[in-house]
Parts: sequence; C-alpha cells; structure tokens
Amino acid sequence: MDQSPLNKVRPYLITKKLVPENQETPIHFQKCDNVNENLFYRRNHFPYPKFTSSFYFLPIEGLVYTPRVFSLQEIYSFPAKTINLVLECSGNKRELFEPKVFGEQWGKGAMSQGIWKGVSLRSLMKYTELLDTAKEIVFEGYDYGERSDSNQLHHFSRSLPIEKALDPDTILAYEYNHHPIPFKHGFPLRLIVPGWYAMASVKWIKKMIVIDHEFKGPFQAVDYVYYPNKENDHRKAPVNSIHINSTIHSPLNMQVLNTGVYEINGIAWTGSGQITTVEISIDEGKTWKTCELASSTEKYAWVRWKYKWEALKKGEYTIKSKATDSLGNIQPLKPIWNRKGYGYNAIDCIKVKIE
Amino acid sequence: MDQSPLNKVRPYLITKKLVPENQETPIHFQKCDNVNENLFYRRNHFPYPKFTSSFYFLPIEGLVYTPRVFSLQEIYSFPAKTINLVLECSGNKRELFEPKVFGEQWGKGAMSQGIWKGVSLRSLMKYTELLDTAKEIVFEGYDYGERSDSNQLHHFSRSLPIEKALDPDTILAYEYNHHPIPFKHGFPLRLIVPGWYAMASVKWIKKMIVIDHEFKGPFQAVDYVYYPNKENDHRKAPVNSIHINSTIHSPLNMQVLNTGVYEINGIAWTGSGQITTVEISIDEGKTWKTCELASSTEKYAWVRWKYKWEALKKGEYTIKSKATDSLGNIQPLKPIWNRKGYGYNAIDCIKVKIE
Repeated sequence: MDQSPLNKVRPYLITKKLVPENQETPIHFQKCDNVNENLFYRRNHFPYPKFTSSFYFLPIEGLVYTPRVFSLQEIYSFPAKTINLVLECSGNKRELFEPKVFGEQWGKGAMSQGIWKGVSLRSLMKYTELLDTAKEIVFEGYDYGERSDSNQLHHFSRSLPIEKALDPDTILAYEYNHHPIPFKHGFPLRLIVPGWYAMASVKWIKKMIVIDHEFKGPFQAVDYVYYPNKENDHRKAPVNSIHINSTIHSPLNMQVLNTGVYEINGIAWTGSGQITTVEISIDEGKTWKTCELASSTEKYAWVRWKYKWEALKKGEYTIKSKATDSLGNIQPLKPIWNRKGYGYNAIDCIKVKIE
Repeated sequence: MDQSPLNKVRPYLITKKLVPENQETPIHFQKCDNVNENLFYRRNHFPYPKFTSSFYFLPIEGLVYTPRVFSLQEIYSFPAKTINLVLECSGNKRELFEPKVFGEQWGKGAMSQGIWKGVSLRSLMKYTELLDTAKEIVFEGYDYGERSDSNQLHHFSRSLPIEKALDPDTILAYEYNHHPIPFKHGFPLRLIVPGWYAMASVKWIKKMIVIDHEFKGPFQAVDYVYYPNKENDHRKAPVNSIHINSTIHSPLNMQVLNTGVYEINGIAWTGSGQITTVEISIDEGKTWKTCELASSTEKYAWVRWKYKWEALKKGEYTIKSKATDSLGNIQPLKPIWNRKGYGYNAIDCIKVKIE
C-alpha cells in the first residue's frame, strides 16, 4: 500500500488571529510566483462583511461632473489591464522590531504575489470626469466595525491623491489569478494600488467619493502613519510606498545542516523602480557577494535570487541579504523603528549551524 | 446571498518545515480539549516512512523468554486502555530561549491533547516475559534517514527503562480520538508514554527489542539531552518528564484592546502529579492572583484556567501565568537554558496595550 495520499505534505496559512481573520502566507514554503488563493495572506480589520453581491453596483460620487453607478457587467466590459504584483501588509516583519511594538505580530509572510485583472481607474473616471477642485478619491469598503480606540462603528476607508488614483496602473480588480477575486480578498471589486503597501488596496469596494481636501479617516490619520517616537506624534509621516526589501527563503533561520553545498535563495522587491542587485553575506556583513537574479523582472513583482554556498567548515554562520533598486534605494542595516511598526525593511538576517 | 461558506474562518497548522514535516498546533485558536487530528502538531525527524501496513506485524525480541510476533488483530483483541493526555515536543517554546538556540523554532504550539487507546505494554509483555537481565526496551520506528551530524542512515529509535515501560499507563496505541491513529501520527501502532516529552512516544513501531544495557542511539545519547553549557557537555542529563508549564491563550501577545472586561485564560500541565494552582499577574509579577481552574482534571491532561480582568485604565500591561503542581513543582521565572533548547517552562508572559 502506498501511503502517498496519507503522507502528503503541504503548507498552510499561519494563523495569527481568527476574529478578525489575520493569517500569513507561509512564504518560505511555497515556491510559486502566483500565490494560490488559499495561501494568500489574509489581513482584516473587521469581520468579513455581509452584502448581497447579486445586487452589487459601484457608485462614484462627490466632485465629479457626472455621478455614475456602474454595474459589474459594465465594468467587465471595459478594456482590462492585468498586473502581476506584490501585495505587502505594511506590518510585514513587525515581530522583528526591537523594541517590540504592539499590533499583529507578523512574521515575514504578510505578503503574497499574484495576477490581478481589472479596469484602470483612469479609464473608468473618464465616464464621470473630475471637477477642478478634486484632490483625493475616497474608497469605502463594505467591512466595518469598532476600533480598539473608539466605540463608534467605522467602515474601512482610505483615500488616494488624484495623481496616484489616475496612475494607469491603479486598477479596480475583479480577477485574481484568472478567476473572480475570492470573497476573502475583496470580491467583487478590489482596488489595487501597485507599489504601495496593501492597506491602500481596499477590498469589497462599496463606493468611491471624490473630495477636495485631505481625507482624515482613522485608517489614514491614526493608523498607517509612521510615528518615529514612542511618546509623541512628532515627525509623523503617512505610510504609502513599499520599502525596498528582501527575504531569505532557504535555509531556514536557526536551521542545523550537514556540511555540503547549498543554494541560498529568496526574494527581493521594491515599491518604486526595479531591483537591480541582491547581495549576500555569510560572515555577519563583513564581505558581500552578488547573487544571481531570475531573468524576467516584472515592474511590481518580486525577484527571485540565489547563491551557491559551499558550507564545508563546521560552525555557526550569520547569513544576510541586501537588495538595491534602480532608484538607488538600499536596505538599511537597522530598521527604522516606529511606534506602530510599519515598513520594516532592514537587511534580512538568519543564522544556521553546520555540524 | 449569504457568504458564510466563503467567509468561514478556521485555524491551520503553523508551517515550520516541510521536509521533514514539522508543523505546530495553533494552540491559541482551538478551544477543544481533544485536538482534531488535522490540527495535531506534526514533528518528524525524517520523511514519512513507507511500509505495507496490510502485512504489519509487531516483533518483540531480545532478552525475553518467548520472542513473539503479534498481529494487529491480536493486539486489538487484548484488553484496552484509554488515556486523555498531553503530548508535548520537548522543543516546545524553543523560540523563547535567550540566547537563541539552533533547531526548529517552535512557538507555544508544539503540543496537542487527545484520547489515545491501546494495549498496556505491561499486559503485552506478559506474553513474552522478561529475562532477569532485561534493563531497557528499545522501540524502533519505521522512519529513518540521514542526520545532520552523520552521513549514515538511522532509524528513529528510543528506549525506555523497564520500570517506565511497565508502568500500567504506558500503552501501544492504535486509536486516536476513537479512530485508527492517522498515518502521520504513527499508524498502525504508536508507543504512548504519558508524562514524558513526546520524543519517547515512538511512531510507526517496527519492532521492540529488550536489552541489558543503556541504549545509545543518537536520538537518546546525542539529541534529547539537556546540555547546560554552550561549549561542552558537562552536567548533561536526559530529557524525559514533562516540566510543569502554562500558556496564556487569551489575550494574544502584543494585542491592542479597548478598555473593558476580559477573560484571561489558558492551559497548564505537568508531567508528574497534578496541577493544583495557576496564578496570574498583571503588574509584571509584583502581585499574583489565583485563577479559577476547570473542575475535571484528568491525570495526564492539561487544565484550563481563567481569570476575569477589568481593564479600565489605559496603558501597557505585562501578564504572566505561573502553575504549581501537587509535587510542589512551580514554573521558574527564567527558563533553564540548554544548548539544544529542550524543556522550556518559564512563567508564561505576554504584553497587551489598552487604548
């Protein structure tokens, strides 16, 4: 008897919280560049919304010439755009901050990548046009609930400045990996904002409102703000573009290995520009070697890299990876600490023991 | 349309490694005292074994009067014993050691509990009897492979001293939670050693050999040994009995909460004796309050405890839990560091923020 169905091994989402559901992608254990929807990380502020998708319409209102309500059929009929991109929670790697910060203790897997298809917001807005006073577009999700700092109900709402909203790559997506977006990831319509941390990519879009001022909802003015000081709000700054980053997938941190030849590999990504170099150090950062990058690099996708390591001498090793992008961004040695723990992007670091 | 099938939320095993499979139980997210087999932690030293279970027989050889080979049918026909018990990997909580130790970085979920049914080893050994020179019984599993410190193939084998082997509660189990043991957990026969860390509960038993000396296999003489010193093997000691321990399940570490009344709850367990008290501190260990314990306490099972916390004042809190057992064992403030990271049982500690 072959036990193969019984001994089949597969990775699972890593459970962080169930109400609301927050589960991270087991990033070290899936080698696919289009993450299966079942392994796509789940990050929610509230319980899953309830709404009747068969009566779904998308209203666009506020400072537009022609307020409109679009049906899904109309949206599906417009010219489509397809983008393979990284979605990364701005709290990704939060558990690595020292001193520790409160909030979901995300490891290295609050990120996933896959193919999103939808209509470019720029082309959709041609049907409504913008008034000259338009400054931002607010995207309101169907999800809502109480926040820990308030007893009022809030919808999850975020805005984009007009320029970013009209970037040709900002889309209202209706497909993920060639299928309708899974409900947990924003069905039927999800905003996709390439290059920005994923709080901007609002799920379950309920409506869009064009406004003439800075939106001040709590998921923009309280959360998703870098606060460099523990005790006050001085020098606060909004969280938006994804920081240049890299993660070592293999070997695993604190792994014990026999002497031998190993492939050190992982991914690197950035919110602006393109990854140009990934370097690796096996001696605690004293010397750095250049890694081999996978050839095809799509604009918003991660890049796979690898390095052949001849681990012939027994002992403990510290392995670090450092990415550089075409705009000259480079991973810092130390993370930029901030009170709510966003944007961790220090040089990735693991230890292994050869015995 | 009700999205309930689409927005159903459930916990998953937490993936640590896939080859061999090491996945931990999402202990904070399952409230059942009999862990579903799909959420039972998986700890393997080697890839899953391949053998033909329809031709399965159990040989008992070595220093016995009557060497025997038992069929499964014979074993099923003997009087059965059922025990609800904790199985805990001796590496549970390893990631909490400071300084960090190499090896699988288990969190707090390398443990599960459920109901095992089988034949008491003591009654089985009556069919073979022991020679007077018998000192230990070796249990060899079907799983084998290379170790990181050797290029030879090893089966996973462990021994028990005769006294422990003949403890009436040591069983050769064939059912878990009233069903045949799942393949990944040792089908068709798994040794169950209540009160000892789970490396003793050998899976996929291939044979048993009675010997007159101390067994020196690498999973007994190299691994599963406490080495208190980083650089040498002085004062080494075998890993066996489960240390008294407790884990806070709710709230979650680093969680942010609104003011309100919360139930702090979790589990406590010990390898010998019974849990008598669990105390909780909300002020970094300055003062301690006694928790309410669930009434029924089975000998080898964990005990659920809870404490009502009125969190009315904003601020950061350190919550600690400390268990005591009937033999006077009490969780230490600091873990007993050892080079391979076994037996972590310091007072459990989390932080929360009320905002």
